Amino acid sequence: MSDSRSLALHTDRYELTMLDAALRDGTAGRRCVFELFGRRLSGGRRFGVVAGTGRLLELIRDFRFGEDELRFLRDERVVDAATLDFLEGYRFTGSITGYREGELYFPGSPILTIEGTFAEAVVLETLALSVLNHDSAVATAAARMSVAAGDRPLAEMGSRRAGESSAIAAARAAYIAGFGATSNLEAGRRWGIPTMGTAAHAWTLLHDTEEEAFRSQIDALGAGTTLLVDTYDTREGVATAIRVAGIELGGVRIDSGDLPLVAAAVRAQLDELGATSTKITVTSDLDEYAIAALAASPVDSYGVGTSVVTGSGTPTAGMVYKLVARQDDAGGWVAVAKASTDKGSKGGRKAAFRVLDAGTATSELIIISDGFEDLSTAKAHPDARALQVALVVDGEPEAAHGGIAGVEAARAHHSRVREELPVRALALSRSDPAIPTVYRDAS
Amino acid sequence: MSDSRSLALHTDRYELTMLDAALRDGTAGRRCVFELFGRRLSGGRRFGVVAGTGRLLELIRDFRFGEDELRFLRDERVVDAATLDFLEGYRFTGSITGYREGELYFPGSPILTIEGTFAEAVVLETLALSVLNHDSAVATAAARMSVAAGDRPLAEMGSRRAGESSAIAAARAAYIAGFGATSNLEAGRRWGIPTMGTAAHAWTLLHDTEEEAFRSQIDALGAGTTLLVDTYDTREGVATAIRVAGIELGGVRIDSGDLPLVAAAVRAQLDELGATSTKITVTSDLDEYAIAALAASPVDSYGVGTSVVTGSGTPTAGMVYKLVARQDDAGGWVAVAKASTDKGSKGGRKAAFRVLDAGTATSELIIISDGFEDLSTAKAHPDARALQVALVVDGEPEAAHGGIAGVEAARAHHSRVREELPVRALALSRSDPAIPTVYRDAS
Repeated sequence: MSDSRSLALHTDRYELTMLDAALRDGTAGRRCVFELFGRRLSGGRRFGVVAGTGRLLELIRDFRFGEDELRFLRDERVVDAATLDFLEGYRFTGSITGYREGELYFPGSPILTIEGTFAEAVVLETLALSVLNHDSAVATAAARMSVAAGDRPLAEMGSRRAGESSAIAAARAAYIAGFGATSNLEAGRRWGIPTMGTAAHAWTLLHDTEEEAFRSQIDALGAGTTLLVDTYDTREGVATAIRVAGIELGGVRIDSGDLPLVAAAVRAQLDELGATSTKITVTSDLDEYAIAALAASPVDSYGVGTSVVTGSGTPTAGMVYKLVARQDDAGGWVAVAKASTDKGSKGGRKAAFRVLDAGTATSELIIISDGFEDLSTAKAHPDARALQVALVVDGEPEAAHGGIAGVEAARAHHSRVREELPVRALALSRSDPAIPTVYRDAS
Repeated sequence: MSDSRSLALHTDRYELTMLDAALRDGTAGRRCVFELFGRRLSGGRRFGVVAGTGRLLELIRDFRFGEDELRFLRDERVVDAATLDFLEGYRFTGSITGYREGELYFPGSPILTIEGTFAEAVVLETLALSVLNHDSAVATAAARMSVAAGDRPLAEMGSRRAGESSAIAAARAAYIAGFGATSNLEAGRRWGIPTMGTAAHAWTLLHDTEEEAFRSQIDALGAGTTLLVDTYDTREGVATAIRVAGIELGGVRIDSGDLPLVAAAVRAQLDELGATSTKITVTSDLDEYAIAALAASPVDSYGVGTSVVTGSGTPTAGMVYKLVARQDDAGGWVAVAKASTDKGSKGGRKAAFRVLDAGTATSELIIISDGFEDLSTAKAHPDARALQVALVVDGEPEAAHGGIAGVEAARAHHSRVREELPVRALALSRSDPAIPTVYRDAS
């Protein structure tokens, strides 16, 4: 319990060395616009799902340099005394606009726009990227699985295959993108997500016989529970399960074998035994492709572990945090961008819209201000939906995005906006983004 | 700051439902042996690197159910009152033996052996797996990069591409496996890892000219600093850097372009300018293959981001936590294992040795006790190195494995044992494990 709760040092050292030098040379107070965006959709995804925003806003609100952090920076001579003074009083007082949590995104979408002094905005780079990159990668994979599962419920049970804190964030991101439950109890406590789970193979192995294990589980959890039937022999396991629980047994779980074959055999056996309402859940190394391959099998629900918490081959969304505009000494605004050819970014402040045709998305329209026109009223198309909302105003997070209510709002928003995707967006194979990103100058 | 620090609910719900049922049926007090191991080396790795052990021991020591956690479990009716009482007084009082942190592992290696009552051991499953699976995946990828880099220093700078807490664990794991530094300040504070970093592209873009940015950085950090030279045009950037800093400039960093070509051009330019001791560091999307491809290029050090913190294609080590032996009502020991063919595990307690021939590893020897013979003296080969040490004794972690000293010990141990690997283990392509796992019965 000796760890500090502050996330202020979850920060790359170069942010503080830049801050230190900027306080010396007078540029620290220049107003800046940083943008968080993805240059591409990693992994050949056809769409991305924004997640982590609500978590991030709470972490920014609590971003403080405490005694332990300041002592470390002093002892290690990371920064000088003036910078330590600045950090001791640090509060983010700027503003953040961006995409709602649960929103879809495409290459170049200005997912977050952070405005403030250079000093206050530069130190948030690592934290903002860590949260958005991780959570969005999980949510994007989860949405693909949700598409593949159709109406069948999905439960996230991958905590053991992710870092212990990332696991909780992953449960949250998967829920936002369409999963219905998680095995992780802390995700239930912290974010209000329904939790599930009954027994592992260890439960059966602990007992002298499978029958004793099943009987005990039913005594504790009732006949509506789900019994894990594949510890020894699945056919015998199912027979024992129904003998012990009766045909009112809630469900059986299968965690091994060739799932289409095993699911069909188990369904036939259950029906033969009269347990026609007993459900089948499968949990063995599923990803979106395996789920899709089970669409015609008699499976009632899926439990997904490794693949969802690790982004199903794409464990990070690859978003970046870039300075896109700043004031000069005269107070004028300058759009800025790195010029290198392979990583070209577009400077300037941006307004983003999803252009719709009869309710279906046709493009991501991004209007760029080279100078610093007020983009708040920019709207170029009658059917365009504005994508940016206020997330932090003068340092204060908008309450609607935080806590358990924020998670529910994000989940509902995702469910709505996914309906706007064209059909081609729902295929699982690697491809280009489902809609093009179109840039237009404001002037 | 409202989060509880307890990790007690970083737990899959089924662990508590099993505990609940076991307290009812009297099996909760049965002595059990759980084993944490990998069935295979994910990603076609030739060896695995154990990491996370020191972190895990501290987390187990602090694993407590506080008021918030108990209230949640009561309100959600996850467990009954008797189980809540048990959890309120929970302390792990058992013992853990296992591989040293930094040790190599292979399929079936008994990385951790957890002994205690079913009740106290079953609830640690998720936490133990989360920590070991994440940290070992990162350490295994990092070791491959360290092999590829040879004597050139490696810095980890991937915090932004990992969950905010996993990022710190990743920095720690990479350091154990051969990296020399991290960009993550919290990893420096918490685990004593050297930190590094100077400036991002935003630093150059903040200023009116690249020259002003370089001059200011040198004023703050001295001419020994590393200047990022590729914001606009790398050739001009290098020329400006030397004009401003002189030939004493510590280094230049290149973050884009075709690295072998760019590195050669920059080296030639620096030498031409007389800056023959100015070093070149490269940081653009490196993984073990890109590092290997730069072996003949004039690069002095590498900064690695995404690929190391995400396990370079294998973000989780895929280890499992399985009951392998338990007592029966008469107090006798029973070896147990799931029987399903595709996930077959070997029951029984195990002693593990690395068999060496003239200092080079030839096999992973695992001696299995079907009953419960004392394996502490098992040794079947004169050149076999025993791999298991005491990690937790009667609930108390062995101090040598924890804290900053534990990290340094793990790093030193890894460096030593990697020398035992046969040459074929050091190739980067996908393959079978470098040495076979050989099982033998104790009797």
